[in-house]
Amino acid sequence: MSAAVGPSGLEGPGRRPLPVTGAWQPGDPPGGRRFLAVSPTRSFALEGGGALREVTLAYETWGSLNQDASNAVLVCHALTGDSHVVGDAGPGHAAPGWWSDLVGPGRALDTDRLFVVCANVLGGCQGSTGPASLDPATGRPYGSAFPVVTVRDMVRAQRYLADHLGVERWLTVVGGSMGGMQVLEWGVLYPHRVRSLVSIASDAAASALQIAWSAVGRGAIANDPNWRGGDYYGAPAGQGPHAGLALARQVAQIHYRSDAVFAERFGRELVQPLGDRYDPWAKFQVESYLDYHGEKLVRRFDANSYLVLNRAMDLHDLVRGRGSLARALSRIEAPVCTMSITSDTLYPPYQQLEVRDLLAAQGTPTAHVLIDSPHGHDGFLIEFEQVGAGLAKFLASV
Amino acid sequence: MSAAVGPSGLEGPGRRPLPVTGAWQPGDPPGGRRFLAVSPTRSFALEGGGALREVTLAYETWGSLNQDASNAVLVCHALTGDSHVVGDAGPGHAAPGWWSDLVGPGRALDTDRLFVVCANVLGGCQGSTGPASLDPATGRPYGSAFPVVTVRDMVRAQRYLADHLGVERWLTVVGGSMGGMQVLEWGVLYPHRVRSLVSIASDAAASALQIAWSAVGRGAIANDPNWRGGDYYGAPAGQGPHAGLALARQVAQIHYRSDAVFAERFGRELVQPLGDRYDPWAKFQVESYLDYHGEKLVRRFDANSYLVLNRAMDLHDLVRGRGSLARALSRIEAPVCTMSITSDTLYPPYQQLEVRDLLAAQGTPTAHVLIDSPHGHDGFLIEFEQVGAGLAKFLASV
Repeated sequence: MSAAVGPSGLEGPGRRPLPVTGAWQPGDPPGGRRFLAVSPTRSFALEGGGALREVTLAYETWGSLNQDASNAVLVCHALTGDSHVVGDAGPGHAAPGWWSDLVGPGRALDTDRLFVVCANVLGGCQGSTGPASLDPATGRPYGSAFPVVTVRDMVRAQRYLADHLGVERWLTVVGGSMGGMQVLEWGVLYPHRVRSLVSIASDAAASALQIAWSAVGRGAIANDPNWRGGDYYGAPAGQGPHAGLALARQVAQIHYRSDAVFAERFGRELVQPLGDRYDPWAKFQVESYLDYHGEKLVRRFDANSYLVLNRAMDLHDLVRGRGSLARALSRIEAPVCTMSITSDTLYPPYQQLEVRDLLAAQGTPTAHVLIDSPHGHDGFLIEFEQVGAGLAKFLASV
Repeated sequence: MSAAVGPSGLEGPGRRPLPVTGAWQPGDPPGGRRFLAVSPTRSFALEGGGALREVTLAYETWGSLNQDASNAVLVCHALTGDSHVVGDAGPGHAAPGWWSDLVGPGRALDTDRLFVVCANVLGGCQGSTGPASLDPATGRPYGSAFPVVTVRDMVRAQRYLADHLGVERWLTVVGGSMGGMQVLEWGVLYPHRVRSLVSIASDAAASALQIAWSAVGRGAIANDPNWRGGDYYGAPAGQGPHAGLALARQVAQIHYRSDAVFAERFGRELVQPLGDRYDPWAKFQVESYLDYHGEKLVRRFDANSYLVLNRAMDLHDLVRGRGSLARALSRIEAPVCTMSITSDTLYPPYQQLEVRDLLAAQGTPTAHVLIDSPHGHDGFLIEFEQVGAGLAKFLASV
């Protein structure tokens, strides 16, 4: 039996050893990153009651800020994204830009006209302060000592970046999934700092289903003995919580997609076509696909960041401390574009429509774009043409 | 951070220690089980090329076989089911019957008129031969030495039970999910031994999505160091692969259900309502629900059986060795009722309709019942009224 169900093989013989964490670390090539020390004179207080003595944001920009600072766009990334919205993979960037087709000269976010900014979120692992960062109190990585952060904390840190860049009002703040959560919090926390908002495949508060998926992703990591309660950074190379993080990613890789796409792309294809003899151990292509995506994330992500950001998403709730969703949304003054994906079972369209309907009832200008796609939640990273067209049309109306 | 994401707590202080395996074992109370030694004079050859020197099936029956043996119904159980279709929990049965509302006097499967039979499948862990059984060659549990079994192997073993009980033709063979796979294989392997078939929330071949979910469930178990490559039966109490099996179950418990049900049942409710102070560590009810279901399965199931049966489901393919689906289905002579659940994203209705349409095109009498339910795949274990009504109506027509 074990031949077909053995451990993931991430650290099998002949494999390139994996770094303990895929986090970007000081001393690594910066790539396109710049760095901002947020709130350098005092510690950064967090919504959950904790505080961080130092907060750094790693960010990238494309295009130029115009004279009256009216052309700045903030892009907010999703759970496993980072500041590298556009550009090739290369030193300092393990993966190519996750929205390359949307950002650039002549693209929906036209860098000939716009100044586009993206920062790695607080709690992330690609240059911004997160659990893999050094805790100034101990000189060692935070690990299990890293505090709870919320989407509001992420946005509050980004507000310092806006100040630093001289952006009094973003022309728009746009993002998908966890990025869309940040978008809405921007509108509620800082209504005067945004001229428009675009929230894609996201919602006003994490649903029970989203929390459930988060919980099993966390369980996958916590069950990995190499996670060591979160304090694994001193482990020898190859002994990080790779199997756990890879498994968490594999679970997500399924519920981010759809039956239709898997059926068309993989069906019942085997990695090695059957020969003369029926081989009950033959591996299916879809299994190989999951292995690939698990390992790919392990090479560029940090397991503790995965936990911290998942928890932040679970805690996402526009209502918290604000009485009701209607009251929270009533703080938003800017026009809001919501987008949903027809086949998204993780963030079903009704969740965005709830936001849109409440805003519209309050007289806030709204637009809703339903992206017709079989790709499930990941559609916002795949359907560039529809997302781009919706974005361009909305921005033209602002 | 670790407070909210620590290991599952299945073996925490003050907890009742969990048995290494939840498998039923010789010496345990039999409950309603009887046992049949299948093929006692020679070893049982398996489709994958392996063989088992001894095969035992544990089975239960309700009602009486009539004189011409025309009233026998075979119920086939799903992945984590067993022979205990109906009845209370009690000695030998960790859980009450999984279809209690469907089977009994005056019920859809009316035991005043019918003789209802269910056997734990080959590879299972509730009395039939599986990986927790003793290997006669070594006197120790098979563990990692247990061979691959397929749905066809399960059905071939059940055929011995039919012979033993004196049932030349089942009035019907009925089951959901993995049970439905057995139903269709009965019709293809033994067309003269069935008078009708009822396949619920199942399909003609495992889809890529189903295989993907199987794969991550396997990964959850394989990542658990207490799984020990499958040879864990000699471990001290409390040191079985509980965390891995529980996690596999939790993943399944989500994709067996639906956003709608989770949203209505759990929403964003917390286990402990918030007091004056915002508590970022507060646990959501849906997390507690997942913990509960993980532990519940661990108490009554065996991790290796989970692996073996998941693999059997992945290998489910009516086409294998039979040229095409149409050719495979053309062997079926009995009327076939297929049932689907509207909200089932794991076995979407189109899969059953494909079977129905091919059968109908071949002139086989068919019926299709679409069960209107928000409960997702698990609807076949919940919507007793609709399943029962469909079943009763179909049986009346046979």
